[in-house]
Amino acid sequence: MKFIAHINVMPLKELLDPQGKAVNSSLHNLGLTMLHDVRIGKHITLHVDAADKADADAHVREACKKLLANQVMESFDFTITEA
Amino acid sequence: MKFIAHINVMPLKELLDPQGKAVNSSLHNLGLTMLHDVRIGKHITLHVDAADKADADAHVREACKKLLANQVMESFDFTITEA
Repeated sequence: MKFIAHINVMPLKELLDPQGKAVNSSLHNLGLTMLHDVRIGKHITLHVDAADKADADAHVREACKKLLANQVMESFDFTITEA
Repeated sequence: MKFIAHINVMPLKELLDPQGKAVNSSLHNLGLTMLHDVRIGKHITLHVDAADKADADAHVREACKKLLANQVMESFDFTITEA
């Protein structure tokens, strides 16, 4: 079966996010002062060939832990849908 | 009212995504050959102070168009939830 995974990798809440801070300032300079607490991470989509959803889940989790997220600085979550 | 926006900014399907291609190769080198068609974009979360959800939607859309997404190369979508 074919699945699509949507993965979010975000900087941990405890850490500074300088890119988010910079974008926050830029938004305020544009007059959008009602927007705040900007945090910026990565959104990754990928296709998975797997026997079932649990199998796809295991493969995506392995990919996140081994390559996609640096768990010292980042957290990840994902959803898997049938393609 | 306070809302939280979750924004995804992704490279357009028609364009090459060199970062995604590189990650795809790395996943295959790690033995995760069941994963393919990797595409990498940005995930942005921010807080919105707005009168109602429609108002929050309008502010976030303006932020995406003016700053967060380059619509020549990227598409965006977002969801808004109450904080």
